[in-house]
Amino acid sequence: MKILFVGIATERVQGFVDDSTKVEGIAFDRRIPHLEYEFYEHIASDTFMEAIVEAEKKGFDAAVIGCFYDPGLREARELVKMPVVGVCEASLSLASMISAGKFSVLVGRRKWIPKMMATAKGYGLDSRIASWRVLGLTVPMMRDVEKSRAAIYREAKAAMEEDMAECVVLGCTGMVGQARDVQKELGIPILDPVLCGLKVAEMMAALWRRFGISHSKVGGYESPPPDEFRAIYEKVYGKPP
Amino acid sequence: MKILFVGIATERVQGFVDDSTKVEGIAFDRRIPHLEYEFYEHIASDTFMEAIVEAEKKGFDAAVIGCFYDPGLREARELVKMPVVGVCEASLSLASMISAGKFSVLVGRRKWIPKMMATAKGYGLDSRIASWRVLGLTVPMMRDVEKSRAAIYREAKAAMEEDMAECVVLGCTGMVGQARDVQKELGIPILDPVLCGLKVAEMMAALWRRFGISHSKVGGYESPPPDEFRAIYEKVYGKPP
Amino acid sequence: MKILFVGIATERVQGFVDDSTKVEGIAFDRRIPHLEYEFYEHIASDTFMEAIVEAEKKGFDAAVIGCFYDPGLREARELVKMPVVGVCEASLSLASMISAGKFSVLVGRRKWIPKMMATAKGYGLDSRIASWRVLGLTVPMMRDVEKSRAAIYREAKAAMEEDMAECVVLGCTGMVGQARDVQKELGIPILDPVLCGLKVAEMMAALWRRFGISHSKVGGYESPPPDEFRAIYEKVYGKPP
Amino acid sequence: MKILFVGIATERVQGFVDDSTKVEGIAFDRRIPHLEYEFYEHIASDTFMEAIVEAEKKGFDAAVIGCFYDPGLREARELVKMPVVGVCEASLSLASMISAGKFSVLVGRRKWIPKMMATAKGYGLDSRIASWRVLGLTVPMMRDVEKSRAAIYREAKAAMEEDMAECVVLGCTGMVGQARDVQKELGIPILDPVLCGLKVAEMMAALWRRFGISHSKVGGYESPPPDEFRAIYEKVYGKPP
Amino acid sequence: MKILFVGIATERVQGFVDDSTKVEGIAFDRRIPHLEYEFYEHIASDTFMEAIVEAEKKGFDAAVIGCFYDPGLREARELVKMPVVGVCEASLSLASMISAGKFSVLVGRRKWIPKMMATAKGYGLDSRIASWRVLGLTVPMMRDVEKSRAAIYREAKAAMEEDMAECVVLGCTGMVGQARDVQKELGIPILDPVLCGLKVAEMMAALWRRFGISHSKVGGYESPPPDEFRAIYEKVYGKPP
Amino acid sequence: MKILFVGIATERVQGFVDDSTKVEGIAFDRRIPHLEYEFYEHIASDTFMEAIVEAEKKGFDAAVIGCFYDPGLREARELVKMPVVGVCEASLSLASMISAGKFSVLVGRRKWIPKMMATAKGYGLDSRIASWRVLGLTVPMMRDVEKSRAAIYREAKAAMEEDMAECVVLGCTGMVGQARDVQKELGIPILDPVLCGLKVAEMMAALWRRFGISHSKVGGYESPPPDEFRAIYEKVYGKPP
Repeated sequence: MKILFVGIATERVQGFVDDSTKVEGIAFDRRIPHLEYEFYEHIASDTFMEAIVEAEKKGFDAAVIGCFYDPGLREARELVKMPVVGVCEASLSLASMISAGKFSVLVGRRKWIPKMMATAKGYGLDSRIASWRVLGLTVPMMRDVEKSRAAIYREAKAAMEEDMAECVVLGCTGMVGQARDVQKELGIPILDPVLCGLKVAEMMAALWRRFGISHSKVGGYESPPPDEFRAIYEKVYGKPP
Repeated sequence: MKILFVGIATERVQGFVDDSTKVEGIAFDRRIPHLEYEFYEHIASDTFMEAIVEAEKKGFDAAVIGCFYDPGLREARELVKMPVVGVCEASLSLASMISAGKFSVLVGRRKWIPKMMATAKGYGLDSRIASWRVLGLTVPMMRDVEKSRAAIYREAKAAMEEDMAECVVLGCTGMVGQARDVQKELGIPILDPVLCGLKVAEMMAALWRRFGISHSKVGGYESPPPDEFRAIYEKVYGKPP
Repeated sequence: MKILFVGIATERVQGFVDDSTKVEGIAFDRRIPHLEYEFYEHIASDTFMEAIVEAEKKGFDAAVIGCFYDPGLREARELVKMPVVGVCEASLSLASMISAGKFSVLVGRRKWIPKMMATAKGYGLDSRIASWRVLGLTVPMMRDVEKSRAAIYREAKAAMEEDMAECVVLGCTGMVGQARDVQKELGIPILDPVLCGLKVAEMMAALWRRFGISHSKVGGYESPPPDEFRAIYEKVYGKPP
Repeated sequence: MKILFVGIATERVQGFVDDSTKVEGIAFDRRIPHLEYEFYEHIASDTFMEAIVEAEKKGFDAAVIGCFYDPGLREARELVKMPVVGVCEASLSLASMISAGKFSVLVGRRKWIPKMMATAKGYGLDSRIASWRVLGLTVPMMRDVEKSRAAIYREAKAAMEEDMAECVVLGCTGMVGQARDVQKELGIPILDPVLCGLKVAEMMAALWRRFGISHSKVGGYESPPPDEFRAIYEKVYGKPP
Repeated sequence: MKILFVGIATERVQGFVDDSTKVEGIAFDRRIPHLEYEFYEHIASDTFMEAIVEAEKKGFDAAVIGCFYDPGLREARELVKMPVVGVCEASLSLASMISAGKFSVLVGRRKWIPKMMATAKGYGLDSRIASWRVLGLTVPMMRDVEKSRAAIYREAKAAMEEDMAECVVLGCTGMVGQARDVQKELGIPILDPVLCGLKVAEMMAALWRRFGISHSKVGGYESPPPDEFRAIYEKVYGKPP
Repeated sequence: MKILFVGIATERVQGFVDDSTKVEGIAFDRRIPHLEYEFYEHIASDTFMEAIVEAEKKGFDAAVIGCFYDPGLREARELVKMPVVGVCEASLSLASMISAGKFSVLVGRRKWIPKMMATAKGYGLDSRIASWRVLGLTVPMMRDVEKSRAAIYREAKAAMEEDMAECVVLGCTGMVGQARDVQKELGIPILDPVLCGLKVAEMMAALWRRFGISHSKVGGYESPPPDEFRAIYEKVYGKPP
């Protein structure tokens, strides 16, 4: 099974999947340092939409968009038939299945919350969210692993104790690799969005290859008419889709 | 990987999982012909709670409760640490991830809807449901595969065209094996709850064994105190848990 | 009028009803010390479902299930025609009718909240709840009346002042008899679930006996086919229903 | 027990209560032929607010406002301490307690629905309503009992069969006395709002007289300061409250 | 363009509108010192309903009801065709359009919240409200401009920092003129309900005069039959409408 | 006052505004024939984000994004301080203020509904929507004015009669100019999204210029750090913002 992971390099994501799965991790648009702003997401999506269309042509089995805003998720699903997974949608779905009650989401800055909250509402899962908690960290600051872990621990603990969260979702792929230790310390599940995205992608890829199940192409993810699409795609990317 | 599937015999469920997964299918309580009534579910749960507790002791990696009411799901998760999957919760989660808009659920009789609707509301996914449609079939009548398929096709088509469903969930494991043909005919995903339950169980088992993630034991799924529990369990089942 | 109250002895409930009403209080299943866990509730329900079926045969006018989880409520309503009241549903309904805004619910431990919250959502009344507050008491600990009252007073006051609750519901029949004093001290209604269950039961019994109104038997509370049911009931309880 | 019923004459409401209860029915403001319009309700409320304030002084135990818009309910509860019941709130609460799933409300004209729907949303019970169905009758037309019954039967049947309502609420006191026959014919509970209002009022009066429980006076139903209120009341009604 | 503003004198509202707009500000009913209580609102509405009906006859282009409870709004829209604006509805709509996430509302006393919350729910905008915060001021106390401003600043700051409000709505016209300074200090929009009401009224008046758009007269705002209405109006106000 | 309208040429939009307002209408990205697909919207947004940033520099008072998906609305508000109006948000807000109950939205094809529904949910107004009705027209087909009008009339009438809509919103700027006639024929308000967008923009521009009120820059619309943003913008557009 071959999965494209957009947003984090191969060596940092390969460890999350089954032995029989191969992940190829690619960076977001090199022009953009991070995706905290809507404008940045928008620009970065140009690049990864092209990458996802190409991955399908090359025979990949699924793709994961590795940003907790789930940017470009609807666009990508419109353009391809293979499963495309958003790490936010995957993480919230898993969190809801392992929590009897509610779970919390940790984000870097309050700036992120309104869009993510609207996204969660669209998925229907907002009623399961106990709280959105702010770490006070930008994405670049998350490279300081120690400092980030301390902030994650602090807010996850508060979510568990004050907000009665039964599970905590790390709301940014910049926190990749941090879940395990905090989980051990606190004794509740801490969900890494990279792990969630990849696990759901493996499941979806299996459903797609063996049972023909992927996102519905009737309704919101309907593809554009092929000729019309090809013409636009060529104008944008300078080559056929 | 070893998964217990409660409600359908091994030979009918083994085909849904990966080659490396072994499913053991067991029947519901033999005293009960089907689980359409709350009282029947209640009685049948006595038997499968015991089976799930034992499966964990024997080293199973996950269990699936194969009835769309998700009976005994909260009880079982309270008693064990390994993942326990309800086919309703698994199916609705998958359906929500592959639908841009809404999906429909097909049930045998209207009797079933109020409880299932309350369950869906508890999961937070009721806002994603376009309609609940009634086949006019009891569970025993679903053994007539031809007649059931015709009813499924009729209502799935109506859900797609009249209710704008982008995906259809078969709301009873009595419809096992029916999804594929209808999906081909209609061109939208038709979800078999047995398949959904097993695929989510495989994913959950992997998360559990490799990453220590299962349902949270802090909060609603907290286990009873061991001594108190053991005493009650022995009174009920005549042996230690 | 004759009412069966499941969960508390006759002498402790008779004081809540009209002079013309006779309550018979019976204990939950003797094998179970309390009903804090889903498994315990499940097992205890076996006993009281039988008691409710028999009460109807004996000419009782209504039954009350005296646990705030409302365990077995759907099952019991499926099996009988006379009104069956859940103390949680009754209390939340009364609280919503006497509050202009919102009310709070006090529970013993946070373990209880997820299931009760899902139940409240099913009833449609979750939007009226200001907060769920935790007393930090198990059901057995509630036998210490002084300690319980202090905890109830503390949390009810906080609900009134911090959460703007206009009314407080005691979310466990283990707090029976505690409402009155706290109500006097705080000056807002404090609802005892035993009182609420019995008052609603008296009203329902009157509606049933004089106007033929009880829970609808078309839809979710439809009874099983008599012959099928009788056979199962006999296997379970060793006698006809 | 003495209950004031605003909107219908004594002889038409006395039959709904217990033998030990005395109801006094009074007409709405004589200047207003019916309460279908918001302006009419507003004007009529002037009269019945005064009547409710006086009833409390005279020792009544509760009052019922007999219009399905629940006009003046908040105002009246602000002014008195004894329970004041709105027939809409009472009917929806009862309907929700006897339906496993949803119930429908029958109204005379579509004009009525938006306000009633907003009211139901305020009570928190809108999620339990399967449909609002229109009889095509004004309140004065409802005096034609035969014609009204036919319309009620037609729409109640459609609600049960097409909307899967398990119970039907008659959404106007102009339909008083019509429920019983339709209930017999259809086999599901049909709720008369006059009956519901009175039964809830009897329960509330008992809670008030014996247990000191009525609507909370802390929060939305807080009374005006006595002196300020008295001065305004005298200007409006020409006498002290 | 001519706009009637009910509740505040002309000289205090004229400054909010365009040069080409003329506002006529009239006081609420002189018998009532303020509108904090439902009864007071009710009585005051008698007066301003008459004023709005007359304003339409005199050729006004719109009316604004200057109390944050939006009292009499439905009644007035029923009686006239020209736009009638409620300051609460206008303010919440504007706040929702300028907030990416949520906004808060400041009220004088907690007494006000339940009714305003129900109103916001009816408008559909309750999900956008981060918090209702209490200033601890009656309407008469708001005449102390310094004290009020300090309270507004304190709670607006807390809303912004603790509740993550992106905008703050002043929930009483008694706070007219206070928004600007607090907005400068805090750096987020502070909405004055008088300004919001008037700006929406100007927009609505333009839509009405040039495009024939005002509140729909089909459905909830349907007017009473003219003859019936005239007769009642004359009885109430002693003159024809 | 100067307003930028993105998506329709100047001559077709100038007629909707006040005499003192000047609108400049610009086309969407010339590479894209219409915006029915998410990918198309995405690409077109590149162009109009640049145009909105430049309009602010040139002293425009507000901008309107003339597509009912409200594409790029969050991005644009992030980048500028002047008001940016989405025609969907503006239309739904106006519709909610002129409907006592619910309103309907007409769209060209069902493909559009899921995204628009999620958007409406984010705005909080989904509970006010009676139905989404499909015209069966692509955007290019809407150039056939006669055929479109017939479809609009047909579905608006059905919305009014069958779904009890009190107002109908035209859910695509391709229907510009069609509202007036249908409104006259049906007697309920029909909202043209171009008109709604422009009227709200005029109001917002006035609030911005005279009262300093625009979308909040604290929270979800926070701008990127100037230096970081300038560098990215230059890479994307080849010139400074």
